[in-house]
Amino acid sequence: MKDSPTLWWDAAACSIRYIEQTLLPDEERIAECRTVERWATAIRRLEVRGAPALGVAGAYGVALAAATCSEEDLSGFMNAVRRDAATLRATRPTAINLAWGIDRVLARIGRERDIAGVRRAAVGEADAIAREDTACCHAIGEYGAGLLPDSCTVLTHCNAGALACSSWGTALGVIRSAIVAGKDVRVIACETRPLLQGARLTAWELARDGIPVTVITDSMAAHVMRTRKIDAFIVGADRITRDAVFNKIGTYMHAICARHHGIPFYVAAPLSTFDPENLADGVIIEERGREEVATIGGRTFVPEAAGVMNFGFDATPMELVSAVITDKGVREPPLDIPALLSRSTAK
Amino acid sequence: MKDSPTLWWDAAACSIRYIEQTLLPDEERIAECRTVERWATAIRRLEVRGAPALGVAGAYGVALAAATCSEEDLSGFMNAVRRDAATLRATRPTAINLAWGIDRVLARIGRERDIAGVRRAAVGEADAIAREDTACCHAIGEYGAGLLPDSCTVLTHCNAGALACSSWGTALGVIRSAIVAGKDVRVIACETRPLLQGARLTAWELARDGIPVTVITDSMAAHVMRTRKIDAFIVGADRITRDAVFNKIGTYMHAICARHHGIPFYVAAPLSTFDPENLADGVIIEERGREEVATIGGRTFVPEAAGVMNFGFDATPMELVSAVITDKGVREPPLDIPALLSRSTAK
Repeated sequence: MKDSPTLWWDAAACSIRYIEQTLLPDEERIAECRTVERWATAIRRLEVRGAPALGVAGAYGVALAAATCSEEDLSGFMNAVRRDAATLRATRPTAINLAWGIDRVLARIGRERDIAGVRRAAVGEADAIAREDTACCHAIGEYGAGLLPDSCTVLTHCNAGALACSSWGTALGVIRSAIVAGKDVRVIACETRPLLQGARLTAWELARDGIPVTVITDSMAAHVMRTRKIDAFIVGADRITRDAVFNKIGTYMHAICARHHGIPFYVAAPLSTFDPENLADGVIIEERGREEVATIGGRTFVPEAAGVMNFGFDATPMELVSAVITDKGVREPPLDIPALLSRSTAK
Repeated sequence: MKDSPTLWWDAAACSIRYIEQTLLPDEERIAECRTVERWATAIRRLEVRGAPALGVAGAYGVALAAATCSEEDLSGFMNAVRRDAATLRATRPTAINLAWGIDRVLARIGRERDIAGVRRAAVGEADAIAREDTACCHAIGEYGAGLLPDSCTVLTHCNAGALACSSWGTALGVIRSAIVAGKDVRVIACETRPLLQGARLTAWELARDGIPVTVITDSMAAHVMRTRKIDAFIVGADRITRDAVFNKIGTYMHAICARHHGIPFYVAAPLSTFDPENLADGVIIEERGREEVATIGGRTFVPEAAGVMNFGFDATPMELVSAVITDKGVREPPLDIPALLSRSTAK
């Protein structure tokens, strides 16, 4: 199985190249983005999405800001780049990795003395983040693979795969690494309404790698847990506080049902997903537009006179999580996030 | 609020008229069906659906068989009608009401001495079933309304409304009767994948009656239970055994989550939904086609290389049900179904 990159810097064109995920599975198009404004739209439209991939997207976004900025003095240049960074940061409030990737590149370029140096350093740091993300996913995969039986059926929700990362994946990275280690893993992917990342993206990338995958509606997971042998539920995360895991809407319901059936519920995420500063109550849950719920495949199913709610994420209390699989090992709650992060920095 | 019929006998045309539910909410078309074969297709395609409505649909189906049969001697005529009845019965295996409606008309016409009498009796009995179903829904509504606070927010799944019955509805009948009694009820309707009966039908018929309704994806219900004040979850049922409630896929997951949050979980259904003969293990859960999950609004979201599972129903163990609201009153589990049914017959 090979690493298939999700987004990368095109040095010749000074642009970002990426798999345009809203077109999958119908069309596999490598799109190109040349302006920060368009990149903010791409992130908002979920053309690129997934917490670790958003870290990389934020980083390349700052590189793109530096590459396209026309200011000629360093302080005006840096101010313009920081304004662009703020625009990018505001596109998705829940996933912590986006801000993390942006801040890391901003910190790195703050040390440069001239514009050419800033531009080089921005791309270099973003490339490093992308490489490190892939390495993190492989580490997560190897730690997590040890949790799975030699032959098993795993449920997952949304897409925490290669497409959600620089490559390989977090939750799906665990599955890929288990298969590389010789295990026999079958995947049941919840379709993940409203935007169907499970049906469109998880099924696509697993099928591409020859991994057996079956799609169900989100509402079938509990029935499947009751009537079939399910060995584990594995998801990714958009933000992990001490008391909760923020992830795609529906994760919380699956965690309750997994607990009800005695099925281990694992969260796979790199340390960049951990938030040492907030508790769950301090995190904003992104609410998105009506049309994502009301209209599918061009047909509108909700009558106009009815209201719609569209939460992008939910919070799963840590009590429902069996273990968090990080790039530094497997941790069972309660989590000591500051210690986990400082050990990582010290290393 | 008035009773709006879902299907009825057109005596002049000797045909069944019905609201073609697959077209809602875009188009409100009264369709006409003139042959048993087409009626079987209509039931299979869910042009008419919902457990109590299927009882009425089965009954009118036998009336249609009698109206269209060209056999001239009574015994050949009755054999042909019974063959048609078997065809109709096989269309949907999980909902008990379909077979119940068919059997009741078959039993009634077995007492007739000539073909004209059979035809008259079949329509008469089917009309009686439709009238009784409406009366049952009003009784359920009045018993159930007493369970709701004066101002409340109620979650529901799928469509257990007027469109699922002869009129008024079971779960939505409770809501309508509570409103008629002066209560202030707001409804949150789960969209109900794969066929979106919640988004398409529940939202449509509640909005038609001016009842406030908000649609969410099925995966948002647990998050809404955690973050808002939800007073009750009310669903209908396709079959109730002593140990479980069979209802639209997703019901089981909602029942687990309602229990987790301490929210009452009510099932509203007429006595014709109760099955005194089987336990949950003896009931077939209908599995339906791939395309219902894979294709929405004309666009295919699941890649061909991925499998699909499509369960139409699930079984909610009776331990998760707070009470069953029947046309003979509210019953808390454990249920004594034979006693419940015999008391009703004795009455």
